[in-house]
Amino acid sequence: MTDDIRLDDFPLRTSDKLRYADTDRQGHVNNAVFATFMETGRVAFLHDPQAPLAEPGSAFVIARLTIDFRAEIVWPGEVEIGTRVAAVGRSSLTLEQGVFQNGRCAARAESVIVLMDEATRRSRPLSPAARDRLTLLMAPERA
Amino acid sequence: MTDDIRLDDFPLRTSDKLRYADTDRQGHVNNAVFATFMETGRVAFLHDPQAPLAEPGSAFVIARLTIDFRAEIVWPGEVEIGTRVAAVGRSSLTLEQGVFQNGRCAARAESVIVLMDEATRRSRPLSPAARDRLTLLMAPERA
Amino acid sequence: MTDDIRLDDFPLRTSDKLRYADTDRQGHVNNAVFATFMETGRVAFLHDPQAPLAEPGSAFVIARLTIDFRAEIVWPGEVEIGTRVAAVGRSSLTLEQGVFQNGRCAARAESVIVLMDEATRRSRPLSPAARDRLTLLMAPERA
Amino acid sequence: MTDDIRLDDFPLRTSDKLRYADTDRQGHVNNAVFATFMETGRVAFLHDPQAPLAEPGSAFVIARLTIDFRAEIVWPGEVEIGTRVAAVGRSSLTLEQGVFQNGRCAARAESVIVLMDEATRRSRPLSPAARDRLTLLMAPERA
Repeated sequence: MTDDIRLDDFPLRTSDKLRYADTDRQGHVNNAVFATFMETGRVAFLHDPQAPLAEPGSAFVIARLTIDFRAEIVWPGEVEIGTRVAAVGRSSLTLEQGVFQNGRCAARAESVIVLMDEATRRSRPLSPAARDRLTLLMAPERA
Repeated sequence: MTDDIRLDDFPLRTSDKLRYADTDRQGHVNNAVFATFMETGRVAFLHDPQAPLAEPGSAFVIARLTIDFRAEIVWPGEVEIGTRVAAVGRSSLTLEQGVFQNGRCAARAESVIVLMDEATRRSRPLSPAARDRLTLLMAPERA
Repeated sequence: MTDDIRLDDFPLRTSDKLRYADTDRQGHVNNAVFATFMETGRVAFLHDPQAPLAEPGSAFVIARLTIDFRAEIVWPGEVEIGTRVAAVGRSSLTLEQGVFQNGRCAARAESVIVLMDEATRRSRPLSPAARDRLTLLMAPERA
Repeated sequence: MTDDIRLDDFPLRTSDKLRYADTDRQGHVNNAVFATFMETGRVAFLHDPQAPLAEPGSAFVIARLTIDFRAEIVWPGEVEIGTRVAAVGRSSLTLEQGVFQNGRCAARAESVIVLMDEATRRSRPLSPAARDRLTLLMAPERA
């Protein structure tokens, strides 16, 4: 990831409206809420009820989440969440995300997601159709 | 309040975007999150940083909240929150609210809010300016 | 309810540990979290996986929640939640609750809970067994 | 970190009680709540009101959080959170944490925390006293 990321760098964009309850006694949006913003970007395409990526009997589970905190987020307002697929493996994928408030990057994240077979509770290969759809979400790195 | 309330009945309207984390193991949006939606409608005008209703040294505190649950709210999507001032007292006000998903009322609420003096921690009279602004938010009952 | 309630007044007692994220920018525990504390007291006996009160095919749903806010709750620490059954109807029950921090009542609540048939989505009568168990949780009013 | 971690490996231990609202529509505790559990372990010693580690005018801020998700957490019950200092730098420290339910590790995490000067908003060196206290929390790796 380059250092000066912009929302434009991400093919998938969604948003969350900040809530008063998101703030904590330090006055800003609580750090743990950043994990919720990442989830918003993730479920928008992984769990889309209209177009599920996981076949029946399988589900995407998050294996690892890394968040780099770069700036405070302050209520009121909203955040924009950019998401792109960084890598597609046999049964897993890696996402890169950015959270922005007023155009400024407040956090970046990387997630590793595994497709799990719900019967065996073990990983299972991505279908060719899922792999194709995920590949379309792999934004080229900016020059 | 009449029984078939609509978002149009409320002079103040705001919204919240539903989050995956709002759901609980029953599959729908958790009941306690409804209190957050009511807070969203409340703070939008009581705590507006651009136009504070409370004078310096005073703050609005909620004394009572009643929520009538009428329907489930389901992720994904958003909710619309309507708010109106039902009554203005010497040092308190009563709000009526409705939460709507896809035009359907999922909950109604009534809140009693008191203006508190931050030094004495006791109630204190609303200023004439605050009283005037609150009165403008008293929607007439529908015929 | 008498005005000076104590945790001893409630036959059912549970607790919640306060979390940093429960606080908001006013420095205290956010008002909407009080609805979560009431849920903790409610589900402890309504949804007890070891001894479910609702028969298969039915579920308890909350119809109305009223919270009286009496004092701030401040992090860190925990809250004690007292719950009693105030009334048992044909297909519903009324709960009274108190939330206490360091022995001091921070909030009281009243909830109306309805037993719903999951197939018809309509209310359904409490079983005699459920009615008997609920009656045991009706604490006598203090003299 | 060795692979079979136990709560005993951590000199600092705290807990969180699971809440019904922590669950999501998948039936288990929502992934973003794991970040809250890590915060509970973190603030227990970084923000202890009785013994603050940061001198007046400075504050600890989280720069990076990595969570490895290893197992589901299921309501009801509680989680135990173990925390140890893995490294102490000039103006930062690294924490390692484990979250356990019924003795089983559900997640591990690594956090980088920076001491920030509240006036300049830049990092500032840890005091010798803070460094000494942090060093005591560096558990030896198990043989």
